Amino acid sequence: MADATSFTLPATMTAIGFDAPGGPHVLRAETLNVPSPAEGEVLVKVAFAGVNRPDVIQRQGFYPAPPGASPIPGLEIAGEVVAIGEGVASDLAGTHVCALVTGGGYAQYCLAKAAHCLPVPAEMSLAEAAALPETLFTVWHNVFERGWASEGEVLLVHGGTSGIGTMAITLGKLFGLTVIVTCGSESKCAAARQIGADHAINYKTQDFVEAVKTITSGKGAQLVLDMVSGSYVARNLTCLAEDGRHVTIAVLGGMQAEINMAQVMGRRLTLTGSTLRARPDSFKAAVCEEILRHAWPFAEEGALRPVMDQAFPLTEAAAAHARMESGEHIGKIILEM
Amino acid sequence: MADATSFTLPATMTAIGFDAPGGPHVLRAETLNVPSPAEGEVLVKVAFAGVNRPDVIQRQGFYPAPPGASPIPGLEIAGEVVAIGEGVASDLAGTHVCALVTGGGYAQYCLAKAAHCLPVPAEMSLAEAAALPETLFTVWHNVFERGWASEGEVLLVHGGTSGIGTMAITLGKLFGLTVIVTCGSESKCAAARQIGADHAINYKTQDFVEAVKTITSGKGAQLVLDMVSGSYVARNLTCLAEDGRHVTIAVLGGMQAEINMAQVMGRRLTLTGSTLRARPDSFKAAVCEEILRHAWPFAEEGALRPVMDQAFPLTEAAAAHARMESGEHIGKIILEM
Repeated sequence: MADATSFTLPATMTAIGFDAPGGPHVLRAETLNVPSPAEGEVLVKVAFAGVNRPDVIQRQGFYPAPPGASPIPGLEIAGEVVAIGEGVASDLAGTHVCALVTGGGYAQYCLAKAAHCLPVPAEMSLAEAAALPETLFTVWHNVFERGWASEGEVLLVHGGTSGIGTMAITLGKLFGLTVIVTCGSESKCAAARQIGADHAINYKTQDFVEAVKTITSGKGAQLVLDMVSGSYVARNLTCLAEDGRHVTIAVLGGMQAEINMAQVMGRRLTLTGSTLRARPDSFKAAVCEEILRHAWPFAEEGALRPVMDQAFPLTEAAAAHARMESGEHIGKIILEM
Repeated sequence: MADATSFTLPATMTAIGFDAPGGPHVLRAETLNVPSPAEGEVLVKVAFAGVNRPDVIQRQGFYPAPPGASPIPGLEIAGEVVAIGEGVASDLAGTHVCALVTGGGYAQYCLAKAAHCLPVPAEMSLAEAAALPETLFTVWHNVFERGWASEGEVLLVHGGTSGIGTMAITLGKLFGLTVIVTCGSESKCAAARQIGADHAINYKTQDFVEAVKTITSGKGAQLVLDMVSGSYVARNLTCLAEDGRHVTIAVLGGMQAEINMAQVMGRRLTLTGSTLRARPDSFKAAVCEEILRHAWPFAEEGALRPVMDQAFPLTEAAAAHARMESGEHIGKIILEM
């Protein structure tokens, strides 16, 4: 650990873990040693940590931490850099950063790769900063890199008021896309429109396939960012324009999909997808670099902000998970240290 | 019609058509007017025409000619340019070309876009030249452009002795791929290896999924060129390496496929596909240009040749179709005018 700046660090910290998978109640505080940054890493004194769907699925036992990652949940944090490892620029110490991490975010201190950190702009709160990395990296990569979205195209996103959905609306609008979302109630549709969605379809009262066709004058959307999968896939493909792309980032509605390959071939559709957590550090660093170059200027000028739902104290992580599972949140849930 | 070179053209010609869809016997000769080239077109005195699976499916009534295309079957030809339309370089007249056409190949004369013609090298017979365009354009686009195949990768192709299969072997080996094919008999496997396949799997006696895993030491293939679709899709996906691509160019085994989206997402697979015939002229011209630049030098030096099955006289087109439907052919079937 380099001594670029002097911080007095405690030996131990409070973190949130669980012994066995289960409901939100399995989350409980524990005392762990404050970790030391290895080469290329920084230690962040966490101010806020974002709560994400993968944390919930991990707690349920269906998405174990990848090899080498902390067993503590939490994929994004914001706070002050209080120690730096070998090879990290010394001027990072003492700065406010937000970071994508492979785990360990639900804690007072968390390690992050220096290459996975973004500087928190002066005008942005640490609460907001903590709510950005996971959805920003995910939406950026899957919509613009994997999904090749370009200005003037139509993006369809299910779950328009989720963390991913609200980020997809925000980024989509910043980069010239027409954004169509689906939501499960009129009030969520209104919230999505408020956030910037061009169109919000209440999937409980409308067939989204028909609605997308009407909105696009029969042409379809160029891109679907899919978190539902299962039986939605065939319907999504029917919503796609010729040469359309279908990018899956979660399978909340089931894994098995029946698709028409003649449609894929005849209309030159593309289905792909990815998960972020298990990707190599070098990949995440490359996405971080892309984001710094192309999206972060919007964060600096105030145009890129997360939609905030609610903050919970760290020790009430169970309540935060329960809120996410209720589906009542609009935007991001965070934990405050 | 420009008069760059003087040819005496008959008013009428023999072509092969059909009145109603059905078995090979519905194909019958008819007399049609020799067409005149419009702007950007050439008239080719056809020496040979290739027979392709889409011709058979068209005759069966399942793949109608696209709007504006000749109702006469035949998607590739070779012969002498005997007339040119406005805007076509006059030195094309009198040359030997092979061409991708949208139909009309089963005839003594056929129109082609000048931008869809390839010059027949001196060392190549017109019979061979006629057997190249359809599979060359299809394999080139779907393996190298749509499928992003690159040197050192592993390509899996079902139907290794078909026209597409033999072209995939040939092009794959010219561009540094490891080519694995499946075939339905030991003799076809032997033929595929003779043509250049690195591995040939007899799908009647071996599980191709297991065989591909063994051949690739568990890693899988980077690319599947899929002509079967249906129940093969899920098995193909299991054969794919991480970041693998699955490109569908025919659905001979059925359209409906059940796939595991968690596999697509978790291993970042891509499924896509395309058909060639209905693409705009500008697209085909762009592929032709790519082929001229990157693949045609191999044709000029003799390294790129089609695998030839059998030639039939034009008036025996029904026998040519019957042979394709028997599945006994190895490589390309052609018609001689």
